[in-house]
Amino acid sequence: MTDTHRGAARTEAIMRAALELGQEIGYAKLSMEAIAARAGAGKHTIYRRWPSKGALFLDSLLSLHPSRLDYPDTGDIVADLRTQMHTAVDLLGNPPFGPLYQALIGEAQYDPQVARALNDRFIIPQAALTVARLKAAQDGGQLSPAFDLKLAMAVLSGPLYFQFLITQEPLTHEYVDDVLQALFTGMAKAH
Amino acid sequence: MTDTHRGAARTEAIMRAALELGQEIGYAKLSMEAIAARAGAGKHTIYRRWPSKGALFLDSLLSLHPSRLDYPDTGDIVADLRTQMHTAVDLLGNPPFGPLYQALIGEAQYDPQVARALNDRFIIPQAALTVARLKAAQDGGQLSPAFDLKLAMAVLSGPLYFQFLITQEPLTHEYVDDVLQALFTGMAKAH
Repeated sequence: MTDTHRGAARTEAIMRAALELGQEIGYAKLSMEAIAARAGAGKHTIYRRWPSKGALFLDSLLSLHPSRLDYPDTGDIVADLRTQMHTAVDLLGNPPFGPLYQALIGEAQYDPQVARALNDRFIIPQAALTVARLKAAQDGGQLSPAFDLKLAMAVLSGPLYFQFLITQEPLTHEYVDDVLQALFTGMAKAH
Repeated sequence: MTDTHRGAARTEAIMRAALELGQEIGYAKLSMEAIAARAGAGKHTIYRRWPSKGALFLDSLLSLHPSRLDYPDTGDIVADLRTQMHTAVDLLGNPPFGPLYQALIGEAQYDPQVARALNDRFIIPQAALTVARLKAAQDGGQLSPAFDLKLAMAVLSGPLYFQFLITQEPLTHEYVDDVLQALFTGMAKAH
């Protein structure tokens, strides 16, 4: 093994240990010491790469779904949003991703570093994918030209996060379909 | 003073102490002991009424805005939603309510009792007000008859909570106006 390979293998072992322990005892009770022990790594090795538990968890979670939240482009914007949002709620609604991601967002309410990392590493890239897919649909005449693309994430993801974090009711494919229906039709009475 | 008056005064002193200390040192670092000491009350007195710090905080926060989140009914549904949502973001975007409510939602990601209390005491009653106002508008022909009222909170509040908890960018009146515009117009291309 080269040094680079050894480094990559160690990184992977640490992230796997974080996810395993997170599932076993919950994010809140988890310490960097316990993760280091499980991974057979030194605490300093972990802190060299990740400044906090939140940063390590974010990377670990993101390693679970490489590019699984891309949008297809079949030419039908509603169908493509539905496909992607079904995948998203399958992730949010199930372990290991769901409960650990929920805990991470909890942490982001106290720790600005975690909040920033969450945005830089996940939300902003995800928003770019969303806007790109909607822009193509708008250019192709499938979306209202008046729809403000900078609101895309808030309007599409907001109702999912509301259910995930606030009401904490199950996130289902049917819920996604109902939300999309409401957003596409709009609330105004047709003229 | 009667016993009832004494009880009410004590309750108020405890909630005030919780809010003051929460602002001074932050929700996360706050203990029931510190609140009891500040309020001049016994810890058992507090625990008799509130099973947890989360439950006490929720009541304390709700005492800050009695019925300020009602909807006016001027006959113009968009204007009335705007008025109420401007009030809501003024609360969310400023101390003391904003940062403490944010911390409480953080706690609700770990503590199911706090999550349940948040829904029972705040979200569900608020949803009832929202649905009632929208139902009147729908009955009066101001709202699409196809709009599913059970999604009202998720669709209207979801984008606000997304900004509040995830991107953590400032919540402005302009943002509310843009969201309402997007929701009323709808994403679909007009036929």
